Amino acid sequence: MRPEVRPWGQPMRGRLEEHVIDSRLLRDNPLGDPAERPVWVYLPPAYDSDTARRFPSIYLIQGMTGQVDMWRNRIAFRKNQPELIDDLFAADDAPSQAIVVFVDCWTSVGGSQFLDSPGTGRYHSYLCEEVVPWVDRTFRTLAERDHRGITGKSSGGYGAMVTPMLRPDLFGGLATHSGDALFEDCYQPEFREAARALRDHYNGSFERFWEDFRGRPALSRPGDEALVNEWAMAACYSTDEDGTVRLPFDLATGELIPEVWERWLRWDPVRMARTDAGKTALRSLRAIYIDAGTHDEYFLDLGAEAFRREVAAAGAVEPFFELFDAKHGMIEYRYPIAIRYLAERLAG
Amino acid sequence: MRPEVRPWGQPMRGRLEEHVIDSRLLRDNPLGDPAERPVWVYLPPAYDSDTARRFPSIYLIQGMTGQVDMWRNRIAFRKNQPELIDDLFAADDAPSQAIVVFVDCWTSVGGSQFLDSPGTGRYHSYLCEEVVPWVDRTFRTLAERDHRGITGKSSGGYGAMVTPMLRPDLFGGLATHSGDALFEDCYQPEFREAARALRDHYNGSFERFWEDFRGRPALSRPGDEALVNEWAMAACYSTDEDGTVRLPFDLATGELIPEVWERWLRWDPVRMARTDAGKTALRSLRAIYIDAGTHDEYFLDLGAEAFRREVAAAGAVEPFFELFDAKHGMIEYRYPIAIRYLAERLAG
Amino acid sequence: MRPEVRPWGQPMRGRLEEHVIDSRLLRDNPLGDPAERPVWVYLPPAYDSDTARRFPSIYLIQGMTGQVDMWRNRIAFRKNQPELIDDLFAADDAPSQAIVVFVDCWTSVGGSQFLDSPGTGRYHSYLCEEVVPWVDRTFRTLAERDHRGITGKSSGGYGAMVTPMLRPDLFGGLATHSGDALFEDCYQPEFREAARALRDHYNGSFERFWEDFRGRPALSRPGDEALVNEWAMAACYSTDEDGTVRLPFDLATGELIPEVWERWLRWDPVRMARTDAGKTALRSLRAIYIDAGTHDEYFLDLGAEAFRREVAAAGAVEPFFELFDAKHGMIEYRYPIAIRYLAERLAG
Amino acid sequence: MRPEVRPWGQPMRGRLEEHVIDSRLLRDNPLGDPAERPVWVYLPPAYDSDTARRFPSIYLIQGMTGQVDMWRNRIAFRKNQPELIDDLFAADDAPSQAIVVFVDCWTSVGGSQFLDSPGTGRYHSYLCEEVVPWVDRTFRTLAERDHRGITGKSSGGYGAMVTPMLRPDLFGGLATHSGDALFEDCYQPEFREAARALRDHYNGSFERFWEDFRGRPALSRPGDEALVNEWAMAACYSTDEDGTVRLPFDLATGELIPEVWERWLRWDPVRMARTDAGKTALRSLRAIYIDAGTHDEYFLDLGAEAFRREVAAAGAVEPFFELFDAKHGMIEYRYPIAIRYLAERLAG
Repeated sequence: MRPEVRPWGQPMRGRLEEHVIDSRLLRDNPLGDPAERPVWVYLPPAYDSDTARRFPSIYLIQGMTGQVDMWRNRIAFRKNQPELIDDLFAADDAPSQAIVVFVDCWTSVGGSQFLDSPGTGRYHSYLCEEVVPWVDRTFRTLAERDHRGITGKSSGGYGAMVTPMLRPDLFGGLATHSGDALFEDCYQPEFREAARALRDHYNGSFERFWEDFRGRPALSRPGDEALVNEWAMAACYSTDEDGTVRLPFDLATGELIPEVWERWLRWDPVRMARTDAGKTALRSLRAIYIDAGTHDEYFLDLGAEAFRREVAAAGAVEPFFELFDAKHGMIEYRYPIAIRYLAERLAG
Repeated sequence: MRPEVRPWGQPMRGRLEEHVIDSRLLRDNPLGDPAERPVWVYLPPAYDSDTARRFPSIYLIQGMTGQVDMWRNRIAFRKNQPELIDDLFAADDAPSQAIVVFVDCWTSVGGSQFLDSPGTGRYHSYLCEEVVPWVDRTFRTLAERDHRGITGKSSGGYGAMVTPMLRPDLFGGLATHSGDALFEDCYQPEFREAARALRDHYNGSFERFWEDFRGRPALSRPGDEALVNEWAMAACYSTDEDGTVRLPFDLATGELIPEVWERWLRWDPVRMARTDAGKTALRSLRAIYIDAGTHDEYFLDLGAEAFRREVAAAGAVEPFFELFDAKHGMIEYRYPIAIRYLAERLAG
Repeated sequence: MRPEVRPWGQPMRGRLEEHVIDSRLLRDNPLGDPAERPVWVYLPPAYDSDTARRFPSIYLIQGMTGQVDMWRNRIAFRKNQPELIDDLFAADDAPSQAIVVFVDCWTSVGGSQFLDSPGTGRYHSYLCEEVVPWVDRTFRTLAERDHRGITGKSSGGYGAMVTPMLRPDLFGGLATHSGDALFEDCYQPEFREAARALRDHYNGSFERFWEDFRGRPALSRPGDEALVNEWAMAACYSTDEDGTVRLPFDLATGELIPEVWERWLRWDPVRMARTDAGKTALRSLRAIYIDAGTHDEYFLDLGAEAFRREVAAAGAVEPFFELFDAKHGMIEYRYPIAIRYLAERLAG
Repeated sequence: MRPEVRPWGQPMRGRLEEHVIDSRLLRDNPLGDPAERPVWVYLPPAYDSDTARRFPSIYLIQGMTGQVDMWRNRIAFRKNQPELIDDLFAADDAPSQAIVVFVDCWTSVGGSQFLDSPGTGRYHSYLCEEVVPWVDRTFRTLAERDHRGITGKSSGGYGAMVTPMLRPDLFGGLATHSGDALFEDCYQPEFREAARALRDHYNGSFERFWEDFRGRPALSRPGDEALVNEWAMAACYSTDEDGTVRLPFDLATGELIPEVWERWLRWDPVRMARTDAGKTALRSLRAIYIDAGTHDEYFLDLGAEAFRREVAAAGAVEPFFELFDAKHGMIEYRYPIAIRYLAERLAG
């Protein structure tokens, strides 16, 4: 039997271009993270063979701690994401061709949730006001919201839900894989883990945690994930204008601090979808795709169901919806399913 | 090496009497559970040797699913609880002698939280108005609140915290091992597990769950523990007068239902301790003992710390407080430490 | 809905008698464990109602660390074993009535594997030459091997497999629930865990382990289970005449020591069943029952399958064989299934 | 605080060249895997700045399922391996400069163990007779065994142990991170998992497993890892000349098949180190580095200790030896420690 696995990559039928955007909006961001940002653009085979044609664009965003070069990470026996996308658009049964834009909104606390926050920087604006116009200027896109979609997994799925609700003028379709939603399900149970880790290892202090964390292999100690995650979310959801990061729980006990928690909930896609603005935005979309693994460690399958309900309650288009047998990780093979779905519905 | 383990029990130096109380208050309880209840009473060696003397009484209550005969459960290589208590009071360094009363507040949904509820029955009243008077009538107790304590683990620790806050006229001391406290830490994270289990196995219906559960070995399927636990707590904390059990979360998603959750929080020992009545009650106590394992699966170590803080904020007696290296189970060896503590402080 | 669970026991329809045997064979056993041993005997309803009748006897033996009084341990919402057996024989569809004998072969290293060993004592002989004759003298048994069976779980399942192979003149039927078998599957993987625990906590020394273990709550530290288990098995399988316990692995690395391991394998029921004596014994049995959980942590489902194969290869009676959806623990509800099976086949 | 993490790579101070070797020895390998193999070569800063100088070479090999492009996989918040190595050689306290050669010995069953086998191909010969000569021809190496080392992790650590024992004429130093060793500790316990997975999902057949595995996301089902791993090892250690892969266990039960297992043990580095050839080879080495995590899931810390003992017993050079607090994964930060160690000892 000739193995079907092709190791070490494969010849691309489309093209992957690597660019850098020197962002004005990210300059002087509060974390001091780089303002020069990589952007990768995948151009499908037809882009070069049919040079008069314009294409829909699909923005692909990443989960917590994602940096754009991680898209090339290879899992054993599997293809990486550019290979999977190239396979999709080069196949005999390829969907309508589309451009895929790999955006980087990494921050040194792990991520930005694709929002503007005094805790991290103006990543929502960077994406909407710098990346999108640059893409439309630089490539032959169909430069209208009806032909523009956004997709991602985990925090990237979160961004794919909230960005079109904030900017329905820019995006006409969304896809979320295991996107952060229903914050009491996905975030709150970690507060107690964070509190315990602070007590056991850092004398109750996030400052000590970060000092320790920065000086050793990242994510190598128990509690690291909860601590990074909750701090990062607070940096995105509940940071004061002066940059003070407010945690929504008592660091010693995990007890909820309702007024800070309320600030988080305002950014919960499920709650956003219940507002008038959210409903209106959802109703305007041409394509909505929702999936999650039934064993997701963050219970994002429940968040997916909750978001699906709000999509229905808003009277939006019938979404694609699937819960599949998997956990949170190792599901990169789901991306092309959503990209196909969006590409077909956002075509000219 | 002569082994120190003595298998199959040992001769008692004190006595354990087994009685039954035919409860008037539990008659016609909503679950149809038996109104005849076992009560065990441990009488220390001095009870028979010094027949003029009166003794403090310590009420020992159980965790979820506890039935009084489980006190005789033997863990490998270990003594059971009556043996441990007898060892305590028969030792050369025994504390001041006390009577220990093993109370049974089991229900067919797992427990009662030692409260009165239209969902389970009047177990708080049963304990305070039937068991306590019967004990004082039947045995040579020091029948004042200053010489009466209550202790337990898990839901029994919960009962040991709230019963004296509700009836400071009856109890002068309390001890809690890993007692339910800070409900967002100990209960809320299970809501999502319950929702997932209902979806995966019971078509979203608690009725189907209970029907299945009653017809097979109990607690043998994934999700059983979360489902039983959350139902039981709702039966105790948020059942309407007509017997309707209100769950504090959307069964399909785990989303919190704030108005029901608020009913739960009113029974959180940490919140109760912040009320005027709670503070006053705590200040009146002669002895407070708090412990928990640092790896407790329900994070009751954080609840212990939160309760400790409220005890301090109330201006109550300096409590015993210890977090020890253990999980939630297999910590029956902690009981005698608390019983010693109470016995010494509730003596005449 | 009236709950079907009946808490705190139930009235017995048969009788459970508790006796003590003052064993001559266990006197001066090498561990200094008690030679006075509890024996419980369950007499079914017909024993008292039909006083001329004689009954088959089924010997029920325990797993590692089992002491006879653990049979009364109650699992939440479940009946204990005497209640289950009484239900079996009092039911409308009760099998042919039988006497059930609860034998205790506990040792202070955890067990005896129901063998004679200079490391533990003469428990095989105790069972076969003292308990069996005493039962036949004391109760109205059908005192022939064709009406005598043996059953147990885990190490008790082991004993139920090997005892009839050693003494086919005494036992005519066997039942094993998750019995120790195929030693490379069930024991060997723990050697590495034992080696690591010795390295991490006891400076590589079993002496230090036992000293520590005897001075604190048993089975409360990581590695306890593997260390107790492997030592106990070595005490049973590979102890020299002078009492020296030989471990089958290098304590520092877990490397197998073939000559000691070979001594263990001679006691593997699967290997015993391949000998001429084993085959002959198996062929003589009237009833063989084998089951195990498909997720058994010790992979005793694989051992069950291996033993089943040898039973078939020996040309023995067609056995009952079932793998069910469970782990190793909490399967006490399987006992009555096997007891029914044996009772029906060992009847007069 | 300016974050110390530099996302998306960094400018290299040395150079990483990517080459392909068209292997004669891998042509027509039994799995039909590619004979054109990527080879990466890291040239340290001094290579270009001091063009007359020759350098030691360190061969870096991968664990099971490793393909050379995985070296660029990025873990959250961390540098990838080329970045770490470049940091090492560009630092103020850099060790003596060395060339690092990234070799690819991937196969479609997961790996080759860097051996010649009729089950996989001639990867040992490929490494020793094709890669090494090509490197020495192409780069300014110190082309003697005293200046050539080999290092890797897991199966790469295995290769780093056995390759110099097989070819002491070629390699003068070795480093193993968590290298496969003491096969009863690291492999054998998985046999039972493989047997169970075959029973539960593949009707007992490896053919069905591979058919299923090739048609879905790899490593996404329970049992995948054990099945791939044990098959791959059998392909390396116990394949007949005609290509028949012999598994060392009964597929239905996990029972060891001694004659096949014996073939495996002949390739155990611990056993190889006990042979005369092994001892002589080890004694000839200038540098030996051994480490492993104390919680390694494959217990390779015990294998490390066992190999350390054999190194000592052989009278070889005093090795570097460290057990550190980690599991098997996420320890890429250990590589530069070993490369530094080898670079210093293999210098001119």
